[in-house]
Amino acid sequence: MRASNLFTKTRREAPQGEESVNAQLLIRAGFISKEMAGVYNFLPLGLLVLNKIVGIIREEMNAIGGQEVLLSSLQDPALWKKSGRWDDKVVDIWFKTKLSTGSDVGLANTHEEPLANLMRMHIASWRDLPRYVYQFQTKFRNELRARSGLIRTREFIMKDLYSFNKTEKEFREFYEQCVVSYLKIFDKVGLGKQTYRTFASGGSFSRFSDEFQTVCASGEDTIYINKKKNIAVNKEVYTNEVLKELGMKKSELEEARAVEVGNIFPLGTKYSSALGLTFKAENGTDTPVIMGSYGIGPARIMGTVVELFHDAKGILWPKAVAPFDVHLISLPGGEKTADKLYGELEKKGVSVFYDDRPQLGAGEKFNDADLIGIPLRIVASRKTVEQNKVEVKK
Amino acid sequence: MRASNLFTKTRREAPQGEESVNAQLLIRAGFISKEMAGVYNFLPLGLLVLNKIVGIIREEMNAIGGQEVLLSSLQDPALWKKSGRWDDKVVDIWFKTKLSTGSDVGLANTHEEPLANLMRMHIASWRDLPRYVYQFQTKFRNELRARSGLIRTREFIMKDLYSFNKTEKEFREFYEQCVVSYLKIFDKVGLGKQTYRTFASGGSFSRFSDEFQTVCASGEDTIYINKKKNIAVNKEVYTNEVLKELGMKKSELEEARAVEVGNIFPLGTKYSSALGLTFKAENGTDTPVIMGSYGIGPARIMGTVVELFHDAKGILWPKAVAPFDVHLISLPGGEKTADKLYGELEKKGVSVFYDDRPQLGAGEKFNDADLIGIPLRIVASRKTVEQNKVEVKK
Repeated sequence: MRASNLFTKTRREAPQGEESVNAQLLIRAGFISKEMAGVYNFLPLGLLVLNKIVGIIREEMNAIGGQEVLLSSLQDPALWKKSGRWDDKVVDIWFKTKLSTGSDVGLANTHEEPLANLMRMHIASWRDLPRYVYQFQTKFRNELRARSGLIRTREFIMKDLYSFNKTEKEFREFYEQCVVSYLKIFDKVGLGKQTYRTFASGGSFSRFSDEFQTVCASGEDTIYINKKKNIAVNKEVYTNEVLKELGMKKSELEEARAVEVGNIFPLGTKYSSALGLTFKAENGTDTPVIMGSYGIGPARIMGTVVELFHDAKGILWPKAVAPFDVHLISLPGGEKTADKLYGELEKKGVSVFYDDRPQLGAGEKFNDADLIGIPLRIVASRKTVEQNKVEVKK
Repeated sequence: MRASNLFTKTRREAPQGEESVNAQLLIRAGFISKEMAGVYNFLPLGLLVLNKIVGIIREEMNAIGGQEVLLSSLQDPALWKKSGRWDDKVVDIWFKTKLSTGSDVGLANTHEEPLANLMRMHIASWRDLPRYVYQFQTKFRNELRARSGLIRTREFIMKDLYSFNKTEKEFREFYEQCVVSYLKIFDKVGLGKQTYRTFASGGSFSRFSDEFQTVCASGEDTIYINKKKNIAVNKEVYTNEVLKELGMKKSELEEARAVEVGNIFPLGTKYSSALGLTFKAENGTDTPVIMGSYGIGPARIMGTVVELFHDAKGILWPKAVAPFDVHLISLPGGEKTADKLYGELEKKGVSVFYDDRPQLGAGEKFNDADLIGIPLRIVASRKTVEQNKVEVKK
């Protein structure tokens, strides 16, 4: 892409009222814009990063047998009343509105109920199991506070996978397979070293759930890390009783702030029982399906990456999620060489952000490159051309 | 994809209360499911078709200089009050809800206001124009009636492009370029022969707008087609005065029912003036940007394709939007040949839906293939293997 065509401009100043580092940098560099508190737009560079993260997640979800769907945001209260989750006292982040016919309707903040209901049409016998269904879909959550940029928003695309199993054993096998897959994803996006599988509260239907927490000073959560075992415990279950159960000692654990970049919940038969999702077992009995849910927020990953990888001048994207492979800069005298190189690199499948803007000086172009943060920079100028080379900088 | 892995099952009966042919067939074949009136979920086969249509549109939008973004659904009333469109008497399809802080918030049914506001940060001088920005984004429209399956829904992904130009001439040139691009898109998805550029009402800021109307018995609109000129006139502007202006005679026109699969609106400076989107012209004066909007609904295209291309047994997808290139069926004795062929075709980049289900008979497999409607069918059975060939049917 030629910078002269890109419609976004960088900004020197962070917008007023934007407290988080990730939103400040992403807005200044033109990746996102703020619609209102907790609501952001993805501009061309931002959408490229988001789509790279989505691509990495999709590949892993397909590899573990996930089938992609796209469920609706608008939700019929009837399904949610069956599980008790329509009640604002149970789920306090609903956005609710009304159809023009006067009926209540909600905006989905998760999809256990509609998917369990949908699967009733497609699961009849044990032969139809297991099934793994996922989507990248916009969730709406009416958060009271949203001050962490892309890390906590009122509207965001979530990858949510749901598992449907016939036995606890089959479910646990998939669960552990998904843990491995999640760790691969966090590794690929550049958060591998900082991210820990973390024991957290399982809610009403399981002793524990698994969170994936990325150590980050601006994180909202507190975790206790066992570096030897490469796992952690969320503060919410950090009790002597739990530690004993997990075979851990307080002395082995380090406290840290962290961002929850993913989670896995065993759901048991809570939603399948409530919604009537059963299967005919081999012995002929109607049995509720065992479910689990597996979430990752691609935009939250994007925000966390920026929180961890930046310097005073701007963002430092890991290669796998950078908007482009190369940031090519032409300076006076280097235009022809840069033009030629741009064509050659693109032909080779290298994606290039080409700053070809004739009216800008070297200082402005370097500042923009520092802010935007593409990992590899190539400069073509009169000097480099005279020496019959270009300047390459990682 | 192996049919034995696909979680969806076909149904013999259309669901109760589903009047439209497109939704009946798409639900029976497992492409979509109904969440409530006017709200559908895309299941794996349906998402494949939707993504193919999206891909065709994206390619054309990029080719005419479009830059892709993703704007938020949640909308701040402040922006919409500036243009007067927050008022339910002006726009009667709003879904409105409230933030937990108590403020009003709307769900976007279009994006002129937020995008014009956003572009204020990125357009300053005539040098920053023209700009063309588009997205594939979920629109929410609180329709009173929604009985046409995918053709009129309360929640749908829309491709909406917005143009930002400095002169009327520059705008009109892009407008006509986009008309060409739209006709290419309808051609590619298989609706070319039935789709007419149609003169329609321009609203308050232009004499006419352009609609793209696909002739279809179940369409909601009435148009008058001039087959010689390959254009049409919407009933809403079908007056003697307008026909005279367009140089058409009633005797040359044929009445038909049609579905509006795309539209283009000249917006003039209505939204740029209301939102304060101006640029410094070459003569130094602050000038409002000339805007246009260009919409296509990929799911509406999908529904219209099914309305037009089906028979008593099921859907007949045009090749370009079929979920797979080939529907491969193995019958007893043909399993090994089919397995081998499946591997070979996939390796060659041919996408194959492979009905490998061992427990199903030929009749059931053929019925499913007829319903699902992939254009090319290959059957491997004992008979074909003995003859050292497979059966290929278009």
